[in-house]
Amino acid sequence: MNIDFELLAKKMIGQTVPKPSSGTLSGHAAGEPFDKLVYKFLKEQLPQNTFRQYEFLNELFLANPQVQNYNERVKLIGTPTISYLLSRGKEPTNKWKPDKLFEEKQNDTADIVVSDKDFIHIIDVKTRNMSKNAQAPNIISASKLAGACSVMLDNNDFDSFDINYIQVDWILEDKNLVCTNITKADLFKSNPEKLYINWASAMQIQFHVNELNQNYNGDKKNWAKEYLYHFTQEATKRSKYMINEYVIPYEKYTKSVV
Amino acid sequence: MNIDFELLAKKMIGQTVPKPSSGTLSGHAAGEPFDKLVYKFLKEQLPQNTFRQYEFLNELFLANPQVQNYNERVKLIGTPTISYLLSRGKEPTNKWKPDKLFEEKQNDTADIVVSDKDFIHIIDVKTRNMSKNAQAPNIISASKLAGACSVMLDNNDFDSFDINYIQVDWILEDKNLVCTNITKADLFKSNPEKLYINWASAMQIQFHVNELNQNYNGDKKNWAKEYLYHFTQEATKRSKYMINEYVIPYEKYTKSVV
Repeated sequence: MNIDFELLAKKMIGQTVPKPSSGTLSGHAAGEPFDKLVYKFLKEQLPQNTFRQYEFLNELFLANPQVQNYNERVKLIGTPTISYLLSRGKEPTNKWKPDKLFEEKQNDTADIVVSDKDFIHIIDVKTRNMSKNAQAPNIISASKLAGACSVMLDNNDFDSFDINYIQVDWILEDKNLVCTNITKADLFKSNPEKLYINWASAMQIQFHVNELNQNYNGDKKNWAKEYLYHFTQEATKRSKYMINEYVIPYEKYTKSVV
Repeated sequence: MNIDFELLAKKMIGQTVPKPSSGTLSGHAAGEPFDKLVYKFLKEQLPQNTFRQYEFLNELFLANPQVQNYNERVKLIGTPTISYLLSRGKEPTNKWKPDKLFEEKQNDTADIVVSDKDFIHIIDVKTRNMSKNAQAPNIISASKLAGACSVMLDNNDFDSFDINYIQVDWILEDKNLVCTNITKADLFKSNPEKLYINWASAMQIQFHVNELNQNYNGDKKNWAKEYLYHFTQEATKRSKYMINEYVIPYEKYTKSVV
């Protein structure tokens, strides 16, 4: 089940969405309608297989009414790593009912899920205002990704999914935002040791999709190990940085307190 | 120069602003127009003394055209702590010109500055949707506050300013947000050891203004010392937590990498 990204790019480039009436043109909100357009065009390509993440879970649970508790519902979702990445919390999953469907949630891992019997493409859409030199966006929690890597390694679960990021470039033209380009990057084809973790910003991995290297040659098993090595090294560095930056400079003031 | 908060509350309660046309009702954006209303009513009370932070800086620099470099402009702002809290960065301050005024910035310390000759009230406005049980909002960076405390202690600068938070409670009624109550809290009257620091969320101190204790009996000098003690203790805890949570659990996977 391959996604034709070239076809998607052809459809997207030149598309316009209205400029938001309020708020700034920086940040997520301005380009968000483009995410819905990407979804629409992928759905046209693969109508039976393309879902928003919450839709994917709703359809799965609706199709399996006999499965009613958390552990079994989570198993429905897919392999252990897919379940780890796409499931909702224990309580919401237990409480899910056909008349109380999941709704879209901002911190879902995926914007879009393209699902085949044996393979799931997890897709996240990022939008980028090309007239501004903005900070790289939040991609995924570094600790959530560490958890996913450990689940992959514990279960030898390397061939059931990939994680792709699609960047929609846009510029402002009069009252519209116009899509000028589309780029795509495969997380597991990027060098895990180069991923930037912003610890102060909810431990998010941050990059511009079009700037992500795609030269990694190892397999997913090596990727997971190397990412965990990188993550633990960076966490150790950050832990030391906190002492040097936030404790030692203030010790002279605090001695008299205790 | 005292602010009449009771008068402000009288004016604010019952005020309405239109429900935002897009976006969720959680978060900062929905209630933001109330911040502008608070400003308007304070400006009515003290027209000569009430400014947005960027206006305060603009008027100060406009009134002192002979002062043109960073160090001297920063001194204009006030005592060392006031300068530390209200100044912009070195480059923007150097580049400031009468025809290139500062604009509002989201991470300014203050929403509103009420300035007298000898004293400055730094005021931040928070809005709270009372129909939701939302997370406490970001108040101020814990490390920025640590910096301010060290400047206070280095310069014996305790009597030139205070920091107040005003919370505007609102509920949704039809197509409007209605202000139902106003509460105020003085940062230096709250117990510094009770302040919650959310390290993962940009190291922000978080609280609901109406829930902040106001029983602290010490003076600002003690407050600054006790806050720095609290801050360094919490930073040390967080530093250890990172090793326990993000390093040790993954060590078994990373041994074979190196």
